[in-house]
Amino acid sequence: MLHCLIIGAAGMLGDGLAKRLVKDGQIGGRKVGRMTLFDIVAANTPSAEEIGVTVETGDISLPETATDLIASRPDVIFHLAAIVSGEAERDFEKGYRINLDGTRHLFEAIRKAHEADGYCPRVVFTSSLAVFGSPLPDVIGDDYIITPRSSYGTQKAIGELLLADYSRRGFLDGIGIRLPTICIRPGKPNAAASGFFSGILREPLAGLPATLPVDTSVRHWFASPRAAIGFMAHAAAVSSELLTERRNMTMPGVSATVADEIEALRTTAGEAAVALIRHEKDPAIEAIISTWPQAFDAGQALSLGFEADESFEAIVRAYLEDYAPAVERAS
Amino acid sequence: MLHCLIIGAAGMLGDGLAKRLVKDGQIGGRKVGRMTLFDIVAANTPSAEEIGVTVETGDISLPETATDLIASRPDVIFHLAAIVSGEAERDFEKGYRINLDGTRHLFEAIRKAHEADGYCPRVVFTSSLAVFGSPLPDVIGDDYIITPRSSYGTQKAIGELLLADYSRRGFLDGIGIRLPTICIRPGKPNAAASGFFSGILREPLAGLPATLPVDTSVRHWFASPRAAIGFMAHAAAVSSELLTERRNMTMPGVSATVADEIEALRTTAGEAAVALIRHEKDPAIEAIISTWPQAFDAGQALSLGFEADESFEAIVRAYLEDYAPAVERAS
Ligand SMILES: NC(=O)c1ccc[n+]([C@@H]2O[C@H](COP(=O)([O-])OP(=O)(O)OC[C@H]3O[C@@H](n4cnc5c(N)ncnc54)[C@H](O)[C@@H]3O)[C@@H](O)[C@H]2O)c1
Ligand SMILES: NC(=O)c1ccc[n+]([C@@H]2O[C@H](COP(=O)([O-])OP(=O)(O)OC[C@H]3O[C@@H](n4cnc5c(N)ncnc54)[C@H](O)[C@@H]3O)[C@@H](O)[C@H]2O)c1
Repeated sequence: MLHCLIIGAAGMLGDGLAKRLVKDGQIGGRKVGRMTLFDIVAANTPSAEEIGVTVETGDISLPETATDLIASRPDVIFHLAAIVSGEAERDFEKGYRINLDGTRHLFEAIRKAHEADGYCPRVVFTSSLAVFGSPLPDVIGDDYIITPRSSYGTQKAIGELLLADYSRRGFLDGIGIRLPTICIRPGKPNAAASGFFSGILREPLAGLPATLPVDTSVRHWFASPRAAIGFMAHAAAVSSELLTERRNMTMPGVSATVADEIEALRTTAGEAAVALIRHEKDPAIEAIISTWPQAFDAGQALSLGFEADESFEAIVRAYLEDYAPAVERAS
Repeated sequence: MLHCLIIGAAGMLGDGLAKRLVKDGQIGGRKVGRMTLFDIVAANTPSAEEIGVTVETGDISLPETATDLIASRPDVIFHLAAIVSGEAERDFEKGYRINLDGTRHLFEAIRKAHEADGYCPRVVFTSSLAVFGSPLPDVIGDDYIITPRSSYGTQKAIGELLLADYSRRGFLDGIGIRLPTICIRPGKPNAAASGFFSGILREPLAGLPATLPVDTSVRHWFASPRAAIGFMAHAAAVSSELLTERRNMTMPGVSATVADEIEALRTTAGEAAVALIRHEKDPAIEAIISTWPQAFDAGQALSLGFEADESFEAIVRAYLEDYAPAVERAS
């Protein structure tokens, strides 16, 4: 019986992951018997009959937090807690404290437990495309250099390096997965530079207007929340023997242009939905987006069995199935 | 008048750098007026008439050390203090404490000074080829991924990432230079896996026997101490305007096989010196060396004016000029 710990369980992906683990009931054929959901705010408790679920709150950036969290020696740890790009850029110290020190404290607590009793959990770390920085080729391979252009990306890149070194030393059994940009992100519009990628679909699907600040030729790399949650669940199950050389890898995704997004909206929701998109260029957002990756050759992840969404249309359909009813109920 | 601070000034390269700055008397056309030589052990004071030299000792892994060191706001900081690969691998905590936390404390002290009064020194950080890990192509370009396979390499790679982020934010004006393997390293034989690259030349040049543990076809990337010291001095002078995209780069070097080394020994010291090399394979050392880089395309560094040794023979001649007389005097 596996004990799974999700750190950052109140977040969008953490919440979905908890539900998914309840639904699957197992990881790599081993039954999930217990789940601890940790976050700085209380996570939702998914209704689970056969799994004992504990919800705990605390701050992962304090060194003793991780020591307490692993006292019960969870078998699988999903480390999702982070502050996002915009906040880490605005508040330098907070970003390093939560995204870097939080991760290091967790790994250190595991190392000390390893030295005490041989503990060696699978650790799934959610990294980001923000580790890549321009100049970038059109298609980025698994061997491309990591040169982040944000403090958030720097913190994720350092987390990857630590994960690899702690794994190589045998303190933990880590896998770092660089998630594509999540689209369609459910919920309210947010101020992130990437917000429009979801907004131009989510708002029109709910009958609301949306603004497109860039040209329709802009290309980027996407995964649905469903696919991203699938990556995390699969990462927990990948055999350790297959993770000898590189522990961190880019997840497969759908490379799509804004025009492709709009076409998928047209197919799923019709011309009236498309008409809700107002084109209004924002040079500041255009400048940021122009430095972002467009597509990857995610060969390593594919060879390990990670599966992307089938198409951009599949991304929109996944959203309608997984989130749209709730959105409608809420409004 | 520039004030230069060398952290790690008692080390092999730090000592040479201090002498070089005294000899040059300037960096990028600006006169060096003051030099602070810092290390955990007291550095040698080079004889300097026109430069005020201060020798200080302390432990850079303590947070307050860097704050004290930059109280006088040095214009150029060379950060060389580190424990080497073998020791960082044997003592995990010590490696992270000195090589990672020491570097971070320094950058943090500079950031706080920046916030107080706009301080923004040039920081030269000595990184290493150990940031690269197999699988590696025969010639490694400036865009190749960094996947260290040692804790030392991980600590250097994290130092590079921090240097880039602190520079991007404008807290400091950093440049990270990945030094080739230094050859011929003066002094006594040491236990490093790379030791034989220097040993098979240094010992025969002094009339002593040496052991070669690998095949003569093994290829690697080298720089003389003189060239490495030149890289540091040049790094201090590179114009900030040229460092916008990437702050960390591999230094140019000489790609040579062990056979090339032996040939250079034959040319400079004759057949009798070559006869002092005993060939005795060590599978453990062969295994380590087989994962090391063989050659680089150091295009970015070359375009910024960094200059490698001309040939392997030039590396041997530089050693004879710079160190051999001292070695003979000592024996
Ligand atoms: N959503 C994306 O597009 C995307 C893309 C790449 C990577 N990621 C990464 O995936 C992970 C999850 O993403 P998400 O979209 O669910 O983010 P989210 O912001 O919805 O969730 C992150 C959670 O971490 C928690 N947290 C923050 N600071 C904490 C602290 N000090 N102690 C404990 N918990 C803390 C937050 O409360 C939040 O619930 C993050 O690590 C994120 O960086 C997300
Ligand atoms: N020599 C090489 O082949 C090579 C190759 C690549 C990179 N480098 C890097 O270049 C730099 C200098 O190399 P070197 O060959 O002169 O090394 P070295 O070991 O001779 O010198 C390092 C110095 O750092 C000092 N130091 C260690 N811990 C300290 C602490 N806590 N506080 C203050 N000082 C401390 C040591 O006392 C020593 O004098 C190092 O950062 C090294 O990692 C060297």
